[in-house]
Amino acid sequence: MDEKERLSKLQKKGKYLNHYLLGFTDAEGCFNVSLKKQEGTRFGWVLDPVFHITQHKNAKFVLELAMRQINCGRIIPKPGQEDTLQFIVDNRKQLAEKVIPFFSRYNLLVKARDFEIFKEIVLGLERREHSTKDGFERLLKLAFSMNMEGKQRRYKLEEVMKDLAGSSETTRQTPKGDDIVRPA
Amino acid sequence: MDEKERLSKLQKKGKYLNHYLLGFTDAEGCFNVSLKKQEGTRFGWVLDPVFHITQHKNAKFVLELAMRQINCGRIIPKPGQEDTLQFIVDNRKQLAEKVIPFFSRYNLLVKARDFEIFKEIVLGLERREHSTKDGFERLLKLAFSMNMEGKQRRYKLEEVMKDLAGSSETTRQTPKGDDIVRPA
Repeated sequence: MDEKERLSKLQKKGKYLNHYLLGFTDAEGCFNVSLKKQEGTRFGWVLDPVFHITQHKNAKFVLELAMRQINCGRIIPKPGQEDTLQFIVDNRKQLAEKVIPFFSRYNLLVKARDFEIFKEIVLGLERREHSTKDGFERLLKLAFSMNMEGKQRRYKLEEVMKDLAGSSETTRQTPKGDDIVRPA
Repeated sequence: MDEKERLSKLQKKGKYLNHYLLGFTDAEGCFNVSLKKQEGTRFGWVLDPVFHITQHKNAKFVLELAMRQINCGRIIPKPGQEDTLQFIVDNRKQLAEKVIPFFSRYNLLVKARDFEIFKEIVLGLERREHSTKDGFERLLKLAFSMNMEGKQRRYKLEEVMKDLAGSSETTRQTPKGDDIVRPA
C-alpha cells in the first residue's frame, strides 16, 4: 500500500482521521498567544493568538490534511528553517469559528490545558474584552499562564502590567515587536 | 472536563483511541534499527531494532496509554534528559507480536516507509535470515536505507560490508558499541 492508498483509506473514515489529527496535534501542534508592542492601539500592546502544526517538508501532505479537515489556514515555510513547513491559522475569526470548534469536539489530552486557555483568550478577544483595561489585564494574565514549551517571553508580566498601569487608555505610540524569543 | 475525564472518554472508544495513538506516533514515535559491534556473534555485528515514543514527563499518561493499547514495553527516563520519558519496546518477540501487528492494522502516514523497512528487518531476524552472510547483508542494507531523522550512524555501510567480506562466518571478537550517534 503506497502513501496515496493509505491516505485515501484514512480519509474515508472521517472521525478516525480526525482522531489521527488529534494525536498528531497533541504531539506537534502549538497553541500560542504572543504579546506584541503595537502603536495605534488602546494600551500599546496586542495579544496575538496563533495555532500551528510544524512538520518536515517531506510530510507536507499531513499539513494539507489538517488544513482540509479544519477547513482554514495556510501552509508556509517556517522562518529560518527551509526544510520545515507550518500549517498556520492566525486569523482570529478562523480560530474562533474553525480551530476552536474542531478541538472542542475532539478533546486533546497533552495540550488540553493550553487549548482551554487559548480558547478563553480568543473568545475574550472576540467579545472585545481587551477594550477595557481590566479585560485586557485578565487576558494578558491568561496568556502568561500558558506553557511556552521551552520558549521564553521577551517581556515580563510585571513589566507589562506596570506599563498598563501608567497607560491613559488613549492610543499609545510604541515600537512594534513580537514578545516570543525562541531558543538559539 | 479534567484530564482524567478526557482520558476516560477517549478510552471508551477503542478504535478512536488507537487512531489518536497512530497520529501521536506519526509525530513523536521512532522506528529504529541500530547496528552494534558485539563479540561472540557470528559476524561480529548485530542489528538491534527498537520502537519508542518520547514525551515530557508531564505527559507520562500518553506513554502509559500507548503501553496499554500496544500491550507491551516499558517506560524509562531518556538517557541524559531527566525531564523526558520514553515508552520503549526493544524485545524482538514483543516487536514482532505486538508492535508490528498494531501498526499494520492502523496505517501510519508520515512514518509508513520506515515502519515497512523496520517490519521487514524484525521479521527477517525472527526468521533468522541474519544467520547467513547474504541474509545479514540484506538486513544491514535495509537498516541503512531508513530515515535517521537528523541522527547519524557511527559506521559507514561500506566499512561494515568490507568488514563482513573479510569475516570467516566464525564467532568474532570485537568491542561493544552502539552505532547511532545523536547530534550534540
